[in-house]
Amino acid sequence: SEVKKIAVIAGDGIGPEVVAEAIKVMKKTEELFGYKFEFEHGLFGGIAIDEKGTPLPQETLDICQNSDAVLLGAVGGPKWDNNSKELRPETGLLGIRKALGLFSNIRPAVVFDCLKDASTLKPEVLEGTDLIVVRELTGGIYFGEKFRRDGEQGQEAVDTCVYNVTEIERIVRQAFEVAQKRSKRLASVDKANVLETSRLWRETVNRIAPEYPDVELEHVLVDNCAMQLLRRPSSFDVIVTENMFGDILSDEAAMLTGSIGMLSSASLGEGSFGLYEPVHGSAPDIAGQGIANPIATILSVALMFRLTFGYEDAANAIEAAVKNVLDAGHRTGDIATDKSKAIGTTAMGDLIVAAL
Amino acid sequence: SEVKKIAVIAGDGIGPEVVAEAIKVMKKTEELFGYKFEFEHGLFGGIAIDEKGTPLPQETLDICQNSDAVLLGAVGGPKWDNNSKELRPETGLLGIRKALGLFSNIRPAVVFDCLKDASTLKPEVLEGTDLIVVRELTGGIYFGEKFRRDGEQGQEAVDTCVYNVTEIERIVRQAFEVAQKRSKRLASVDKANVLETSRLWRETVNRIAPEYPDVELEHVLVDNCAMQLLRRPSSFDVIVTENMFGDILSDEAAMLTGSIGMLSSASLGEGSFGLYEPVHGSAPDIAGQGIANPIATILSVALMFRLTFGYEDAANAIEAAVKNVLDAGHRTGDIATDKSKAIGTTAMGDLIVAAL
Ligand SMILES: CC(C)[C@H](C(=O)O)[C@@H](O)C(=O)O
Ligand SMILES: CC(C)[C@H](C(=O)O)[C@@H](O)C(=O)O
Repeated sequence: SEVKKIAVIAGDGIGPEVVAEAIKVMKKTEELFGYKFEFEHGLFGGIAIDEKGTPLPQETLDICQNSDAVLLGAVGGPKWDNNSKELRPETGLLGIRKALGLFSNIRPAVVFDCLKDASTLKPEVLEGTDLIVVRELTGGIYFGEKFRRDGEQGQEAVDTCVYNVTEIERIVRQAFEVAQKRSKRLASVDKANVLETSRLWRETVNRIAPEYPDVELEHVLVDNCAMQLLRRPSSFDVIVTENMFGDILSDEAAMLTGSIGMLSSASLGEGSFGLYEPVHGSAPDIAGQGIANPIATILSVALMFRLTFGYEDAANAIEAAVKNVLDAGHRTGDIATDKSKAIGTTAMGDLIVAAL
Repeated sequence: SEVKKIAVIAGDGIGPEVVAEAIKVMKKTEELFGYKFEFEHGLFGGIAIDEKGTPLPQETLDICQNSDAVLLGAVGGPKWDNNSKELRPETGLLGIRKALGLFSNIRPAVVFDCLKDASTLKPEVLEGTDLIVVRELTGGIYFGEKFRRDGEQGQEAVDTCVYNVTEIERIVRQAFEVAQKRSKRLASVDKANVLETSRLWRETVNRIAPEYPDVELEHVLVDNCAMQLLRRPSSFDVIVTENMFGDILSDEAAMLTGSIGMLSSASLGEGSFGLYEPVHGSAPDIAGQGIANPIATILSVALMFRLTFGYEDAANAIEAAVKNVLDAGHRTGDIATDKSKAIGTTAMGDLIVAAL
């Protein structure tokens, strides 16, 4: 079959370690399913700041733009936390989202059987929780004009939150489509009782809704959603919301599953191109020790196979392999109840490759 | 002692029922402690829309401005939800906050012993949770310029988030002072890696911090805070944040205690003036049935006594009376495990008055 080009951005901290295992898995699927991948590596984040003086070098962007998909490890760390804005890893993250037109961030929050007890929520509340947050990723207060000025009450800072109907329509349609393939329930989250952008958001959702008559739609205010996620997490199917609310709610949803070390995410644009990454961060405290959990990154590959390449067979195989390895009792340190039996990053990767 | 004027805004739904019990409690403290209160009632919210054509009539504002404190029941309901902006209860709420200069919203999130099991969090995680969210209430994206305009990509909506140093300083100082009287830990929540207002916020917090050397300060990003509240709620003492983040996080914090029907809140300005209200809403579904729980409103009176009047004795007495009544096993329907034994709103008020 056709060669797929994958841009690999290992990034900082545990990024390179977990990405190495994901690549092993992809190579195994070449053997098993006859797929062909070409990997091109790019510098990004803290390491790019150190080596190239910018978190998002043009050549990295070029590599991504010439690829069919991007696999990202993790970026950031205390080393760069006090840098000026242009020299911070997150500036690279915002830059790559905008440059690649990745307007939609898909964050599944599911509970892994073996991690049921890791959640701080009661098991009976968590039971059946399986939701997806669809977050708008290239608009809103993240990308609006920001500046300082002198006012009557001293220095003033301003952030501008802007949304146009086109931006709202495309993310909302995508969320409706995701919902159609699942339990057909969509919660649109806004703050329409206060914000003008939220009122335009809600009007747009209501205008589009009749095109998806099979999807049950509810509007939830963001403050109420933060509560309902805690009270009835399993009642949500797909949640769609704007950038800032999505940042907060997707992290809340991830944490309540107790499975944050295992969750994957996709950032999509028009067409099939996408950037895939684990939800967890660069974990500088355990970097370089070979003990990081590669599962979230490996599951991000499954998501890439499904959403960008349509390789449903390989995606399912990866997910099944992960499940088998976990069911057999193998654990990295972060998810082990008996830490003395924990295995390392490569051992976990090897087991998943073997289970494929 | 001096007569204190209290503006009473019963509002909508269960508001009038719960406020009536709070007034009974205040009257009892007149007898017991020799305090003197003068109550003046004002229309506000939905009922004011119906009777006066505006959610915040000028005469209600006058009553508040001529009072030492305001007791608010609850506002809103489905009846007014589809009104235009000027005819919505929440517009009155935003208006009264701004008009009375109530820049600080104090929301204690504590766990009531009798409601430990009502939380969706595991009891061992919840153990010892006792935090206060100090939310900025008259600035930020709530009050910045909002408008629509035609853009290249169709209609556009804009919200503006503005903060000046003076606004940030006063709320942050207040939070430091609240922390000094408690466990001396302050978490300042922002999104300084993205927002200019958050960067000004963080700089201001850091500039002020040396004045409170006994308070341990941490900066937490809002998305991380949404997670940490779930993972380690008992590790927080005081959380200070801007208006929009405070709206979301205070609701999340309230919900995780499982005690949302029992939580009180204060909105303060310069000086001792304050507006006090239960955290719960107007609960239109049970309004008029005499079954609402008046405890959150009664505890809001205790907060008023403590924060506005300095009546520590009466505040403590009210809190002790509530505890005694609960310890004796009395419950309204919302907090009863055996619903058949639940008592009504007035019965609960009477028991608390008797326990005083
Ligand atoms: C690092 C930060 C800029 C970023 C965001 O807020 O989008 C992160 O929190 C995320 O969710 O990917
Ligand atoms: C009703 C709404 C405008 C209000 C707010 O967002 O401030 C409410 O959610 C609150 O927290 O008091």
